[in-house]
Amino acid sequence: MRFEGMPETHFQSVLAEAPATVANVGPGFDCFGLALIEPNDRVRVSLSKERGIRIKSIIGDGGRLPMDSQTNTAGRVVQSFVENLNIESGLELEIEKGLPLKSGLGSSAASSVAALLAVNHLFGSPLTQTDMLPLLMECEAMACGSAHADNVAPCLFGGMVMVHHGASATVLPIPVASSYWCVVFHPHVELATETARRVLPDSIPLATLSKQASHMVGLVLGLSKDDDRLVSESIRDFVAEPYRKSMIPGFSRVKQSVLEAGALGFGISGSGPSVFALCRGELKARDIRAAGEATYAQMDEAVDSFLSPLHGTGARIVEAC
Amino acid sequence: MRFEGMPETHFQSVLAEAPATVANVGPGFDCFGLALIEPNDRVRVSLSKERGIRIKSIIGDGGRLPMDSQTNTAGRVVQSFVENLNIESGLELEIEKGLPLKSGLGSSAASSVAALLAVNHLFGSPLTQTDMLPLLMECEAMACGSAHADNVAPCLFGGMVMVHHGASATVLPIPVASSYWCVVFHPHVELATETARRVLPDSIPLATLSKQASHMVGLVLGLSKDDDRLVSESIRDFVAEPYRKSMIPGFSRVKQSVLEAGALGFGISGSGPSVFALCRGELKARDIRAAGEATYAQMDEAVDSFLSPLHGTGARIVEAC
Repeated sequence: MRFEGMPETHFQSVLAEAPATVANVGPGFDCFGLALIEPNDRVRVSLSKERGIRIKSIIGDGGRLPMDSQTNTAGRVVQSFVENLNIESGLELEIEKGLPLKSGLGSSAASSVAALLAVNHLFGSPLTQTDMLPLLMECEAMACGSAHADNVAPCLFGGMVMVHHGASATVLPIPVASSYWCVVFHPHVELATETARRVLPDSIPLATLSKQASHMVGLVLGLSKDDDRLVSESIRDFVAEPYRKSMIPGFSRVKQSVLEAGALGFGISGSGPSVFALCRGELKARDIRAAGEATYAQMDEAVDSFLSPLHGTGARIVEAC
Repeated sequence: MRFEGMPETHFQSVLAEAPATVANVGPGFDCFGLALIEPNDRVRVSLSKERGIRIKSIIGDGGRLPMDSQTNTAGRVVQSFVENLNIESGLELEIEKGLPLKSGLGSSAASSVAALLAVNHLFGSPLTQTDMLPLLMECEAMACGSAHADNVAPCLFGGMVMVHHGASATVLPIPVASSYWCVVFHPHVELATETARRVLPDSIPLATLSKQASHMVGLVLGLSKDDDRLVSESIRDFVAEPYRKSMIPGFSRVKQSVLEAGALGFGISGSGPSVFALCRGELKARDIRAAGEATYAQMDEAVDSFLSPLHGTGARIVEAC
């Protein structure tokens, strides 16, 4: 971080929100992520007369998330922020979970991104988005057992991004040509990231590399060139889906129904149980939602669904006072 | 192939040429290939009164390539062409090898592409470039032991391309923004593709997939956005180079010297022993060539070198009469 000296407070209280994200998009295992427009987590960070970081309230989590600021990811990232910037003010957090837990929609990422954006704004934005990334990744490592940025990066930057696993761990925006939309289904079961990661093999055949990687490049070229055929041919996952799909309720049936309804592709969101379909345009997205919901209903599987263009704006300040 | 009925001859004799190619460009193992502007193979295909396919002459190969049209790749692809199109005319081939053998520059691909382009033109171009690809890949399988299109595709189409390992094995052009150049060094040793493939492991760690694949996408985005830093960070190969570099004379010393001379990246061309550097502009390419040649000279290693923009046009008809 390039910040020097102690930042001053610019506000008494800042409310930020941050959206759900789809990671592992298609072939982009641990690389591609995209921001939805809903659902969102909201975090308010306010100055407090008591020293230290305190979580004042959490709603929407059914009382399941820790109130301890060392173990709650939102609390933890605010802790990292104040330690890195030598801030001594007391702070309190109010967290409103809009995202379901262990859903494959980046729930921990949304809370920590909203919290960090809020506290950074409270102190006059000493950190850039790029500065925020390493702090967020530390929290992800704590929450999910591995420090991948494919949820926090799209949540922070918006749109569709690729996490470059190079020396400097850059986040690259993926140019998406026009009106591509995403439909997400969230079946009401929970699947921890660690559990979903344990079913994956440690190694893959060398030939799978060229197969999966050429699908990643194909998807990027297809989305940038507005080439539905190429997008459709490229949304395939040969690495995680074969091992994880049996953990996802009705995966194959829902896949078939949304493809028949005109989806260009379908896959697991993050490590599941949520799934996503990509398509062109909002009208098609509504058809696909209806088809998917009907299929879940036939299976007696409770589900929420969300629609979003691929240009979700990412986290934002809602109110500063 | 969509052609029906027997094609008529349009000429007596057609001469075509096809360039050297760099396959496995950087992280693009079995996927990325690019066409150089030199060296080229030339093949003349002429009508003959004798039935069948006959190789009349081969020059530039030191007498090493087979004169039998069943085992010579250029002869073989012409054979496939006439069989597929039910052509009964006798044909003779004159082959002029401009490319060194077993050099990692796509020598067999250049001869077969030139031969197929020539014979197709001789019969009024019944096949499109896309039709030609499967015939060429069969010949590659015969010549190299594996049917990869990362030499034949750039040789045929020109520029930089990606072979998509999807269901339809499409070849995608990679958009390259501006004045990127390539410098190729060919040390005078031979390395058979089969030998270089045998040193590779059968499987790779799962984490290497996201690493290598994100470098592939990074290279594509960097080249299209004219982003030298991203190109430079992305020309890395974690899969083949670690196993093959010891088979390449002076790999590490040459790599260091060309990077010091301003190359954005450096890697093995195909399966070696040729190597390539990528850089911006012809002047920089000349500096890099001089630096590399000086390093080979210090090692007493005989070498040829070639310069090319990344927009090499691929195979072309030279003369039809």
